[in-house]
Amino acid sequence: MTPTAITLADKFAQFHDLWHPRIIGELNEQHVKIAKVQGEFIWHRHAAEDELFMVVQGTLLMDFRDRTEAVRPGQLLLVPRGTEHRPRAEAETWILMIEPKTTRNTGEVESERTHRDLEML
Amino acid sequence: MTPTAITLADKFAQFHDLWHPRIIGELNEQHVKIAKVQGEFIWHRHAAEDELFMVVQGTLLMDFRDRTEAVRPGQLLLVPRGTEHRPRAEAETWILMIEPKTTRNTGEVESERTHRDLEML
Repeated sequence: MTPTAITLADKFAQFHDLWHPRIIGELNEQHVKIAKVQGEFIWHRHAAEDELFMVVQGTLLMDFRDRTEAVRPGQLLLVPRGTEHRPRAEAETWILMIEPKTTRNTGEVESERTHRDLEML
Repeated sequence: MTPTAITLADKFAQFHDLWHPRIIGELNEQHVKIAKVQGEFIWHRHAAEDELFMVVQGTLLMDFRDRTEAVRPGQLLLVPRGTEHRPRAEAETWILMIEPKTTRNTGEVESERTHRDLEML
């Protein structure tokens, strides 16, 4: 069967909890994920995985140890492997991420915010 | 140096030719590319590379051998390796692609439309 387009708004309508990514597709041993975020996540890094972030709605604030970068719709942010970062958002923000299937959301940190076995929408 | 957000509109403003992708970033041995397209490309496939397409402006028509899929802003299309496809657009359309660095734009086909050594914006 040939592929059909994925409408992001339809996928975001299927869940409401924060900081809990869902998988919406696969690409070269990576997952395409979406999440709703608000408030502050934890500092973490991924030793071997680069991460792409796009914003569908709202503003994602990405804290690095030296500064903070704001990401809005129409922009993308590439966080290279090894870079310590903390995602954060003042209002509810909808993000799209692409990262290797091996990526744990909390990186090297084991936390109550760690999510495994992500659902595929 | 920590990463800064990439504003897609700024990147698209830097070129005007059609069907000639530019690289705007790297992610897990893939390139993030953008291109302006209008008219019809050639039928091709990529033996070992999955491709992601997003539309920033306009409508991308992706022909498969059995049907055509339209992709608009707010949607994404994942074309699995091995799937024959032909991108096409009636009006000028701005697209973002993510695919392995090894990916040739014309897949298995050598054509006057093949572009090598893509410029990084």
